[in-house]
Amino acid sequence: MDLHKEIPTGEIERFYSRALEFSASARALILSLLAAGFEVRRKPDRSFVTSADLRVEERLRELIGKHFPDHGIIGEEYPPTRAEAPFQWIMDPIDGTEDFVQRMPAFGSILALHYRGEPVVGVIDHPVLDIRVSAALGLGTHRNGERIILADLDPEAIDGTERVMLPARANFTKHRDDGPLFDAVARAHPNHRIYRTCFSHTCAVLGMADAAIDYGNPIWDLAASRILIEEAGGKFLDVRAWDVPGVGRIYGSVMGKPALVDRLATCFNQ
Amino acid sequence: MDLHKEIPTGEIERFYSRALEFSASARALILSLLAAGFEVRRKPDRSFVTSADLRVEERLRELIGKHFPDHGIIGEEYPPTRAEAPFQWIMDPIDGTEDFVQRMPAFGSILALHYRGEPVVGVIDHPVLDIRVSAALGLGTHRNGERIILADLDPEAIDGTERVMLPARANFTKHRDDGPLFDAVARAHPNHRIYRTCFSHTCAVLGMADAAIDYGNPIWDLAASRILIEEAGGKFLDVRAWDVPGVGRIYGSVMGKPALVDRLATCFNQ
Repeated sequence: MDLHKEIPTGEIERFYSRALEFSASARALILSLLAAGFEVRRKPDRSFVTSADLRVEERLRELIGKHFPDHGIIGEEYPPTRAEAPFQWIMDPIDGTEDFVQRMPAFGSILALHYRGEPVVGVIDHPVLDIRVSAALGLGTHRNGERIILADLDPEAIDGTERVMLPARANFTKHRDDGPLFDAVARAHPNHRIYRTCFSHTCAVLGMADAAIDYGNPIWDLAASRILIEEAGGKFLDVRAWDVPGVGRIYGSVMGKPALVDRLATCFNQ
Repeated sequence: MDLHKEIPTGEIERFYSRALEFSASARALILSLLAAGFEVRRKPDRSFVTSADLRVEERLRELIGKHFPDHGIIGEEYPPTRAEAPFQWIMDPIDGTEDFVQRMPAFGSILALHYRGEPVVGVIDHPVLDIRVSAALGLGTHRNGERIILADLDPEAIDGTERVMLPARANFTKHRDDGPLFDAVARAHPNHRIYRTCFSHTCAVLGMADAAIDYGNPIWDLAASRILIEEAGGKFLDVRAWDVPGVGRIYGSVMGKPALVDRLATCFNQ
């Protein structure tokens, strides 16, 4: 499928510009809720959810519904709407809710638009850090409006000192016992950091890290990342995907500077 | 040694107030260098050093020398001065230089005053995040001037879901092969994050994380942390210490909520 033929550039520009508006509105709401306070509770799987997650998703759904009434919506906190629509907005209103609750600044808000499963627009916003990365098909990747181009690494020079973002080991064990895979990656790339999902993707997009690995997460955590990475000149690989009953489809991905992404992907082929 | 008997409270207040001034001056310089740009090179051990590290340490040394000409100074970038003095200022002007180079916001500036090896004042400042944690003997721990009190965990409720900050695996292998210790801790406490040294300590001080482990680092990375944690009501344990020829004394420490610190310390007793 050639998305450029299916969707006129003017349409992509319109979607992109609205996505940036929606993201700005989500940021304003998140900052006001951080100041005003919010309720926290645990979901049955012991993960956190707050009244802020719900309110931000409600606001995004309302804005999307108003501007794009034919589009579907997939979000972490509410059931999907218009699942048959070719255009689907996918969101995690607050990714890294546990960090949000602790007021650690790396949490963020993820919003993407997909067309028949292919990403068209992607935005990750970090309200407290004042970092917003955004991309749209054929329009490049930007940080707070400024164009981002990722330089590749020399494959011959990769020696294990590269900066790699990992998920916590818990991500490798929550749906199945892939803990040894975490151990193998941590051994092979010991100069790692572990932030929350969305900030590690942002670091890969911006080249703050050379690559990021994601593991054990659903579609809304990843929906913006492929286009953000690819439009910046990086590489994004889905290295695993499997269905978890009662949870849905779960992914493992590697993203960042192409030469390192290829190297990291070999850890998943064994 | 009872430090309260050795140092009048008025003196501690004076040291504390100066330390906060010095830290504010370092922050202003760091922010101006981030805006203006700085030079980056690699040390022989491949770690990064920048012209900003040097300039910030120079400024701190100049301020300390002016106000406390009898005190010694230990810093990462220059040789110690007045090593025999009972009061020693210990600093890492930019901790997490690799992150500073990448403009990742978790880097920070560490400053402490020790008296005959015991901490009297400690400050960790994160200029980009606008977070400064500070403590002085008997005067409590503060975040941007506001008092911090750490609540403990119920020891019976500790189940491996606590939020633990770890150093990268590289920290366990750079001076000796303690990689299996990293693997064991990561397995036992899978809900971990890996930031840079100083921000993981700050998270433990603020309760953003339940505990932090430090490993394989020299005195200036740790100099502020014991008093920051203890004055907040937390617990700080040195769990390892050894001498590395040509490098100096290297430490392993656990800090944070007392019940979890005790539990984590058992990983180091095996």
